[in-house]
Order: sequence, then C-alpha cells, then structure tokens
Amino acid sequence: MAASVRVGIIGATGYGGGELIRLLAGHPGARVAALQARGRSDEPIDVSHPHLASTGLRIADELPAGVDAVFLGLPHGAAAALVPALLAEGVAVIDLGPDFRLRDSADYPRWYRFEHPRPELLDRAVYGLPELHRDELKAMRGAEVRIVASPGCYATASILCLAPLARAGLIEDVVVDAKSGVSGAGREAKPEMHFSEVNESVKAYGIDGHRHVAEIEQELGLAARARLAPVDFLPHLIPMTRGILAACHVRTTRPVEQAELDDLFRSAYEGERFVEVVAKAPATKHVTGSNVCRIFAHADPRTGRVLVVGVLDNLVKGAAGQAIQAFNVVFGLPESSGLEQLPLAP
Amino acid sequence: MAASVRVGIIGATGYGGGELIRLLAGHPGARVAALQARGRSDEPIDVSHPHLASTGLRIADELPAGVDAVFLGLPHGAAAALVPALLAEGVAVIDLGPDFRLRDSADYPRWYRFEHPRPELLDRAVYGLPELHRDELKAMRGAEVRIVASPGCYATASILCLAPLARAGLIEDVVVDAKSGVSGAGREAKPEMHFSEVNESVKAYGIDGHRHVAEIEQELGLAARARLAPVDFLPHLIPMTRGILAACHVRTTRPVEQAELDDLFRSAYEGERFVEVVAKAPATKHVTGSNVCRIFAHADPRTGRVLVVGVLDNLVKGAAGQAIQAFNVVFGLPESSGLEQLPLAP
Amino acid sequence: MAASVRVGIIGATGYGGGELIRLLAGHPGARVAALQARGRSDEPIDVSHPHLASTGLRIADELPAGVDAVFLGLPHGAAAALVPALLAEGVAVIDLGPDFRLRDSADYPRWYRFEHPRPELLDRAVYGLPELHRDELKAMRGAEVRIVASPGCYATASILCLAPLARAGLIEDVVVDAKSGVSGAGREAKPEMHFSEVNESVKAYGIDGHRHVAEIEQELGLAARARLAPVDFLPHLIPMTRGILAACHVRTTRPVEQAELDDLFRSAYEGERFVEVVAKAPATKHVTGSNVCRIFAHADPRTGRVLVVGVLDNLVKGAAGQAIQAFNVVFGLPESSGLEQLPLAP
Amino acid sequence: MAASVRVGIIGATGYGGGELIRLLAGHPGARVAALQARGRSDEPIDVSHPHLASTGLRIADELPAGVDAVFLGLPHGAAAALVPALLAEGVAVIDLGPDFRLRDSADYPRWYRFEHPRPELLDRAVYGLPELHRDELKAMRGAEVRIVASPGCYATASILCLAPLARAGLIEDVVVDAKSGVSGAGREAKPEMHFSEVNESVKAYGIDGHRHVAEIEQELGLAARARLAPVDFLPHLIPMTRGILAACHVRTTRPVEQAELDDLFRSAYEGERFVEVVAKAPATKHVTGSNVCRIFAHADPRTGRVLVVGVLDNLVKGAAGQAIQAFNVVFGLPESSGLEQLPLAP
Repeated sequence: MAASVRVGIIGATGYGGGELIRLLAGHPGARVAALQARGRSDEPIDVSHPHLASTGLRIADELPAGVDAVFLGLPHGAAAALVPALLAEGVAVIDLGPDFRLRDSADYPRWYRFEHPRPELLDRAVYGLPELHRDELKAMRGAEVRIVASPGCYATASILCLAPLARAGLIEDVVVDAKSGVSGAGREAKPEMHFSEVNESVKAYGIDGHRHVAEIEQELGLAARARLAPVDFLPHLIPMTRGILAACHVRTTRPVEQAELDDLFRSAYEGERFVEVVAKAPATKHVTGSNVCRIFAHADPRTGRVLVVGVLDNLVKGAAGQAIQAFNVVFGLPESSGLEQLPLAP
Repeated sequence: MAASVRVGIIGATGYGGGELIRLLAGHPGARVAALQARGRSDEPIDVSHPHLASTGLRIADELPAGVDAVFLGLPHGAAAALVPALLAEGVAVIDLGPDFRLRDSADYPRWYRFEHPRPELLDRAVYGLPELHRDELKAMRGAEVRIVASPGCYATASILCLAPLARAGLIEDVVVDAKSGVSGAGREAKPEMHFSEVNESVKAYGIDGHRHVAEIEQELGLAARARLAPVDFLPHLIPMTRGILAACHVRTTRPVEQAELDDLFRSAYEGERFVEVVAKAPATKHVTGSNVCRIFAHADPRTGRVLVVGVLDNLVKGAAGQAIQAFNVVFGLPESSGLEQLPLAP
Repeated sequence: MAASVRVGIIGATGYGGGELIRLLAGHPGARVAALQARGRSDEPIDVSHPHLASTGLRIADELPAGVDAVFLGLPHGAAAALVPALLAEGVAVIDLGPDFRLRDSADYPRWYRFEHPRPELLDRAVYGLPELHRDELKAMRGAEVRIVASPGCYATASILCLAPLARAGLIEDVVVDAKSGVSGAGREAKPEMHFSEVNESVKAYGIDGHRHVAEIEQELGLAARARLAPVDFLPHLIPMTRGILAACHVRTTRPVEQAELDDLFRSAYEGERFVEVVAKAPATKHVTGSNVCRIFAHADPRTGRVLVVGVLDNLVKGAAGQAIQAFNVVFGLPESSGLEQLPLAP
Repeated sequence: MAASVRVGIIGATGYGGGELIRLLAGHPGARVAALQARGRSDEPIDVSHPHLASTGLRIADELPAGVDAVFLGLPHGAAAALVPALLAEGVAVIDLGPDFRLRDSADYPRWYRFEHPRPELLDRAVYGLPELHRDELKAMRGAEVRIVASPGCYATASILCLAPLARAGLIEDVVVDAKSGVSGAGREAKPEMHFSEVNESVKAYGIDGHRHVAEIEQELGLAARARLAPVDFLPHLIPMTRGILAACHVRTTRPVEQAELDDLFRSAYEGERFVEVVAKAPATKHVTGSNVCRIFAHADPRTGRVLVVGVLDNLVKGAAGQAIQAFNVVFGLPESSGLEQLPLAP
C-alpha cells in the first residue's frame, strides 16, 4: 500500500474520540497524526482513555501541517465554526456531530437552537451513510470542499431499517421506538448519568422531539422522493453502556407479505459489508464493538403491520466506525479498512 | 383488628411467590398459613428465598384445613386443573397466572395451546385489576365461586395507560412498545437468561404475538365498548431485574390537546392509591418494590399522536402486589393493606 | 402509642437522606417534621427523590422549633460546625457523617484533613453501633449532650465481622478486602461515577488508606482492649447500586476450629435482631433494603486462617437504617421500629 | 507469510470457544480448519455464537486430517482422555482446561475428583504462561509430544502479580482476594447464573478451596524455588460479564520500599507485550477484549504490607488469548499474532 493518509482527531477525549483512536490504530491505510482536546494540551492519552495507553499517543497543541483529514467530535455549533478554516487548508472534514447533516438551514434554529453560520456549505456536505450515499461520497474525492456529515446513532439505525420501505413507497406512517445504552449521551458527568440513577431502571426521554428526528425525516423523504408523515420517534435510556435497538412499527400503504419483505431487504443490502439482514430478532450484543447493523423485518399477519428491528453499536456504526467507513470511501481506500474486527460477545 | 385472614401460597418458590411472602409478612389483616411448592416439601424458605429467612416459614406437604384464600403462582394450565377442588372447599382463589383471565374459552387454545378444562368458570372469574373491576371484586364477597384472575405484568401497564383513552373512544390504533426486566420471565434457569447473555444487551422478543395481547385487547374492548383494531404489542428484554415500561403510541380518532388529556387521566385515576398520573416521563426506578403504576400522558403537536408511558414493578403491581390488592377488596380489607411500602431507590 | 418523636433531616436530598425519609415514613413512633438541603428551599421532595413523591414532603427554609432529634447527612466538617447550636436547643443529634466517630481529635487532621472545632465533644458522642454500644446509647436518654456518631458503611460491616474475634483476643492480623456498590460514594455527579465507567468494571481504590480504617481500628481496639496490628483494608467499587461485602481474612493468635468459631459468633449475636449469623456464604442481595447484616465465619483447615464474610445494604444498616436503630435506642422506642421491612429480592 | 497453521477447536460453542474463533479470525498465520462440539454436528456457528455469523463457519462432524494444532475447551477429565489420540496423529494440543496443568498426579483426585489416566504426560506438558515458561514452550517446537496446559483465569492474574515477589523470596504469606465476572463460570444455564440472581449482588464462593489454588501454589513454589505457605485464595462473583481483578495482600519476609517494588516489577515484565505495569490502580475495563494483564504494586508504609493488584479479561488473557499466545510461541509465530486488538472501552 502507498503512504498512509494522515488524520487528526479534534475532540479526542470523548467516547467517540476514543473509538476513533481504537479503530484507526488497526487501520492499514491511515495514521493518527494528531489529537486535540480543549484544555488537555500535552496530556498522555491514557489520562482520558486508560485502555489506549499502549498507543503512546498524546494530545497536541495544534494540528500539524499536512494532515489530510480531520475527524471532529464536538458539541453542536462548534464544528460549523471550525470547518471553514480546515477546508481552506485543503483538509477533508469528517464531522461526527450534527452541524452539516441537515440540508435546510432553517432546521438548525428549530432543532439545535443556533443559526448556521455557513448555510452555503450545507449543500456541499454529504450525509455520511455509505449505504445510501456512496456515490456522493466517492464524488468528493479530490473535490475542494470535502465535508462528510456523519449520521447520528439513532438516525443510522432508523434510516437503515426504513429506507428500503421508503424507497418502495410502502410507509403510510411509522413509530420508531428506540433504546440506547448510556454512552450515547456522551461522557460528561451529569446527575442523570450517575450509575445509581441509570442502573436497574429504564425511562423514555426526548418527549418533545429528539433532534435525530430531523435527519431521519430528511433521509426517508429523500429515499421516498416524497414528504412522509412526521415520524413518531421515542428514545429510551437503557442500563447498558453500548448498543442501540430501533423498533420501527410501520403502517404500510398496502398489505405486504413476508416474502416481499424478505426480497426488499435482501436486495437493498446485498453486497453491503456492514448491514446484515437476519431471520431472527437480533440483540445489541450481537454487534458490540463492530461496525455492523443487523436488521430484521417482519410482516405481522395479525395486525397487518410491518415491524423492522435494527441493532448497532452506537459508538461504532453509530459514530466512529461509520465515520471511518465514509472516510475510506472518500479517500479511495477499501471500505472496510480498520473495520474488520468481529463483535465482542458475551 | 379482627382475626386475620388465613392464606396459602401455591408455587411459593418462584419470584412471584417470594414477593407474596415479603408483602404478606407486613400485612396487618392476613397471615401466611401455608406454603406449597412441588418437590420442596418441608424445605425451609431460605433455601429458595435466602432473603426471607427471618420469616421462619417452611414449605408444607399440603394445604391445611381452614385456609380462607389461596394465591396460585403456577405455569399456565396448572391452575385451571387445581381450582375446582379449592372452590369446593370454599377457598377464594387469587390466580397470578393466565388460566382465568380470558373470557372467551377459544382464546386458550389460540394463545396458550391448551383447551380450558372448565370454561364455565371463565365468566365467574373477575379480572383482578381493581382500578377497572373494583365493583365486581367487591361483589365476590361471600360468593360461592371466588376466582380473581390477576392480570399479567405487561397487561397491567398497558391497560392502565390506555383505558382512559379507550373509554373516551379516542383510540384509532395503538402501538405498545414495552420493556421488561428479566424477573418477568420467571426463575427457571434458561440459556437466554444467563447473566452473560442478558447483560449489556437489549432485544425484542415475542415477535409472533406475546400472550398478554389477548388480555390487553379484551380489556380495552370492554373499556371502549367496541372492538378495537388489533394492538401492535412488542416486548423487549432489558438488562435489569425488575421493572416494566410500556410506551403506548396512540393514533387518536380525533385531535386531542394536552389539556383534555390531562383532564382525562386525572379524572380517571382520581382517588386511586396505586396509580399516579405524573407530569414528567417516569423511570421504572421510581416505583421499584412498590405497588404503584406511574402514568405520563403527552399530546404531541408535531405528530398529532398521543403518547402514554406507564411504569411499574413487574413483581409487585405487575404480580404479587396487585394480587394482594384485589384480595383485600374481595375480603373487605383496606385496599392498601400490606402495600404501604414506599419504593426503594436508588 | 404516645406522641411521636419529631425529627428533622438536614442534607435530605442525598441518598442517605432519601433512605431516612423512606424508613421514617413507616416508623410508628417518629414523624418527619422538617427537611433541609442547601439551595433547595421550598422544593417538593420529588424533585430530588421522585420515588418519594407520595410523602408530599417539601424542603423547608429552616428547622422548626420543637424538633426532638435531627439526622445529619453532611460532608465531613460541616456537622462539627453545626452540632453545638443544635445541642444548645436541646436537640438530639444523629450524625451520619464522620465528625464525631473518632475519639482522638488528632485523627481528624490525619484522616479527614480538618482540625476538629469542638474536640471536647468527642468523648461525649457515642459510636452508634447498637450491637457494641447499646448501653451507652441508652445512657444518653435525657442527657444534655446527645450525639450519636453513626458508623461508616464499610466500618459497620468490618466491625461486626471482627468484634467477636477481637474480644476473644484471636486477631493476630487481618486483611479486610471490601466491595461496595456505587451509592456508597454519594450522589454527586463525578466522571468516575458515570454509568459507562462503572458498568462492566471493577477496581480497587483508596489505596493510600480509606478513612474508615480509623474507626475500624478504634472499635476493634476497644473490643480487644489492646492495640491491634494495623488493619490492611482495601475497598473496591463494584458495578451495582447497593450493597457491601467485607471479606475479613484473619490470621489468628492460636488455631481455631469451626465449632469454636460457631459458638463465638452465635453467642456474640444471640438476640440481635439485625445481625444474622449464617451457615453459608451470603450475597449482598439477601439483605437489600433491610437493616440486616449477615455474617458467615469459616475456619479454613488448609490455611489455618479464619475467614469472616459480612454483607449489608450500605444505605440501610450501613447508613440510614442504623441511624434510626440508634435513634430508637436513645429515645426508648422499640429498637426495630421503622426497620421491620424484609429485604427486596431478586 | 508462508502457509497458515491449520487449527481445530473442540468445544467450540462455549465462551472460550467463541473467543478463540473471534481472535483466530484476525490471526495472519493461523486458519480455523474445523470446529467441533458435542451434539451440534453441522450446525452453523451463529446458532451458538450469533456475533460470529459473518465467519460462515459450521460445526464439523470430526476433525479433518492434516490439522496442525487443536485447542480444547472441555470439562475437566475430558481432555485427558482425548489427548493421547491427538498426540498420536502428531497434532499439537493447547488445552484450555486443567487436565495438564498440575505436575503432581496426586493433585487431580484431590482438587478435581478424578484419577489422571495418563500421569506420565504431566511432566511433558508445559504450563502455558509464556511470561514464565517461554523457553519451555519454544523447546516444544518440533517435539513429539506438544501439550500446552493453558492456565486458569484466576491463576493467570494471581501468578503474574506474585511471581516477581516469589522469585525475590519476599513472600511470607499471601491473601489473594479475587473478583470475577460471570462468564468465567461458563455458559451452562444454572440457577445461580440467572441474571436476576447475579445482578445487583456480590458474593464470595469456593469457600472450601477454589481449584485454581493448586496451580497458583505450584507456580509460585517454582518461582520461589521453595515451598510457600498455603495461599489464602477467595474468589467473588461480580455482576459483570468479563473481567478478573486479583488483589494480592502480601506479608513480606522483610520490609520493602516502593522504589524496590517498582524496580522488581518493571524488570520482571520489561519487554513483555501483554503485561503492563502501571502506576495507578487499574480497572478491569481498561483491558476488556484484549490479551493484556495490568499490574499495580504498592508498598503500604502504614501496614508494612505489599499490595499487588492485577486485572485481565478472563476470556482473553485468562483463556483464549493466552492460549493463542502460547500457540504462537510453540509454532514460531510472532507472539502477538492475532492478539493486537486494543481493549474495548467504555
């Protein structure tokens, strides 16, 4: 292989940052050239990520010249402010946050409570779900503006479950009832993330509308080439660290049999390395640590509805792994480079 | 207080049996006169329930004469076979299993794969949800046939969430997406209940139709005085021991505002000691160990749907506590006798 | 029963405070007259303790006149400053913190990094372990200075395990290897208490000497009427919410047989309602939510050592329950008032 | 690289078997040629290991001819019976069970309740802890009898913690207080492994002597070139899936300062890829999924004792990973082949 792509990670001390380091450490075509994190300058990596001590990495003061790509794991609003300068230096940006996911700039004040400072860039960013936007990601190779807007964890699970039905015009309306492990809420110490509060408990949250709804509706609308009914999306916090399960309850526009459903999903994801269509309801444990999303689709003769259940690891296919997958496409590397690890179970 | 009611527990070594013993130990008007469990004759209670050692109870060979009521915690089919003999001795039966929950005997082969041996008793049993059937439970006092069919854990949560809407004719269709701790699956050692399999994982199950759907549809139909669309019910196994959360996503027959919803739920459960209508989405941890079901109802202006979330402890309001609550009504005891304990948190 | 004792709780929003409220709610001879917590004035209790909503309690501005006793759940140093004023009003103090546990004022700068402001009170406080100091607690009835220094959670487990051996002069040296659930570290949001950090992990901490060592050595010395070798105490953080297990590995001054050990422990705790000597190694789950400490003592013929294992609920016998037990003794109430609840399992 | 070593796995459906498959899938110099498991002939691997579906492996009827090495994950006694036939075919055996760990055949009836059928092989097996027996493992290359007796999980942690002290003649006596996740107890469904029993609980077990004591004492004796006092070993079951922490409390033969301790451990493990000597007490989460054992050694000036804490993943360095490490040495492959993955955290 030719010389490695040199990458930087900004926001390296969060959970997403840790996963990027873990996965890139085994990537044959990329090399972590620099880590940054606010207020952590020159700190050895094991202060924030004890499990990564053997990498010998340190937080740097600033990005070195000559970095080819930067992964951003920042609070919303921060990436939008930072990206123009990176683009000006010819650096490709893979943003794990939401700042470039939505095409309509009016959605930012609505869902994220900030005015987007560079709305003209939104059309040039690509939503980094390779299974849906691979060609656009490839088309970015060598482009002047390279922004990958890596999808949200809930959004990844929901969109992969529903896109085949949306494309086929089969969604009348949909309830997405999702369950997530705690790492999805980030690493910050908050009272409601205290072990004693989370353990032995489950609760719904985001009652007034979780932000991932915006990207789910955008992507399903694109897949359907039509405006769909609002998605009824409800997330839950589950006493586990990793994993998302999205149960998508679909009222279809016409009756659908199991055989048709099987064909639809098999053909939608044929050849996809990171989507596995399975014949039995999956558990999140089946994909922990891996970049795989498993999907199970079921036509229920009793209710006449379709159920699609998707599971993934929120920090891998829901964050760092997917970002690397899109990065691979943009840089012309094998799409699964650095992402070959099997899941860790039990 | 007058003399205590003498009660027996058959199936005392399961989790439901343990909770009955725990709660009845603090019941001022009832006394555990005998415990039974197959193959455990004369075993001290701490062999199966180490935490109950201080009760000094033992498993008995047989029920002593003179027991007033018997709680049954048995596999389905077993209670139906046993109940006639108990009735013949004038004993009141509180069955924690499903054998007398369904009014239509045809539902037994369909949902439970057995022919009901005494279908004529089904009409004389009362579904033991005091919030919906208190008058029928009271009417049982002194009756010849006293059978309380104590509701299933998922069913209790779902029905309490949906009955006010059903009565008001507001349910067009409903998705109940439910999450349960592991104790709901019973105590038997099965590979899929191994700690290493359950921990750090979530999965959906009962894809082909969980049995509690039958009683949910029955009770909502009674509340609505109409046949409703089939309920789309999906349960999930969560890595925790106790607790059920039911998220009920309702498409309503007409638009409903939050104020109307508040009125509906407040009035439905006014004066109910064990149903708390709350203004914030509840967590299962808020009710652990107690007989309370907390309910949160939300009208979503974006989707036009109504969300109702209910939480309870599957072993208390979802099993042993509710059974004692109904028993109290049947025996004319204060409804909250033995059920005054506050929840245990964190 | 005569009029209830009126109690206040200062520091009511912590986990210890919550347990005091939960247990006192069922106490037939005491009544919670006031709750205090810094910066929470006039807040309904369910903001900090959602599970206690049904008590209808609120945080008050200040303690009302006429309170008979006050429970303090405060950071170390804070109680020492507050207690003199309470004593001046004739209020009995039950301090759940360490400020009055140590008899030697020189231990405060050493172990807690503060100079004790009122060292003359240390001799008048009683270490609130009723199983060891019941007579002194009784002697406090009607005294001018009534300070109960309620023991630490680890200390309770360790001392109850070792006191019988210490009294018999059998301890040559001892390793106490202890394991605690997370609630023992308090409720404050800290990075290391984040669910994702604690879950699926175990670690030792307090390597340089956990503070509870001071009271363990003090009490064992008193029991032995001799200065013992320093106790080698090592605590661990376990991924569970409640529970402490102390494994005490004892090198004895002379060989001890199992029969002698059995006699020693049975006679030491005969008649004690809250210490159960058991014949099989106990689990913390056997005592969750209850005020019981279970103790198992084993003479190992292979190593010639004695192992004593004790389990308790760190928030009950390790904190709030024990405080109420001592309070009962001081006020001449039945010692188990408010503490009759059976453990909650599974 | 030249042709891969062809390996078989017998007992492939257990947790150890699953980890062997996971790790060998990424091994550049080995290839899984056959899987066996009793009663599972021709079953696809995802029936027992859903997370390994993408390997496409199946359980075979029998071992194919030409396999170079076989990993055995079998109940004790079973490997001893099977190994002679494998040796006869020239196959190298890496046994994850205890059948060849103990040099003294009299230890088998004592600790494992069976007479060893082939005691003459015990001297020819090598205890597969490469950090202690690398030269003997290397010497096995090309030998007629190649049996690697892969160490037990507790034993690995304990021996790696204590060998440097043993070699230096510093151990007067030692208490090893160990904590393990549940996967160490195997995959079989037993009542005490039910999620509801393990969750929110900790207990000690193996009170009468855990079997790993035998190999711990054997190896420490070899390291010390002397017979040591019996090791006081106590294991605990912790509510987590993976991970072992061994806290080794050592009374030393003479006073030891921290600086000497640091030298001793740094020099003992210098250059060892899979033992990391750290300066802060480690958590099991720091090594999950990896083949690393982290060790922390502390001289306590207050007690005069030495504390050594070791953590590892019981299924990797405590089982499958260590077996592959020894296999690599025996076959002349780079010792870390297949074992390069970083830990998975959080």
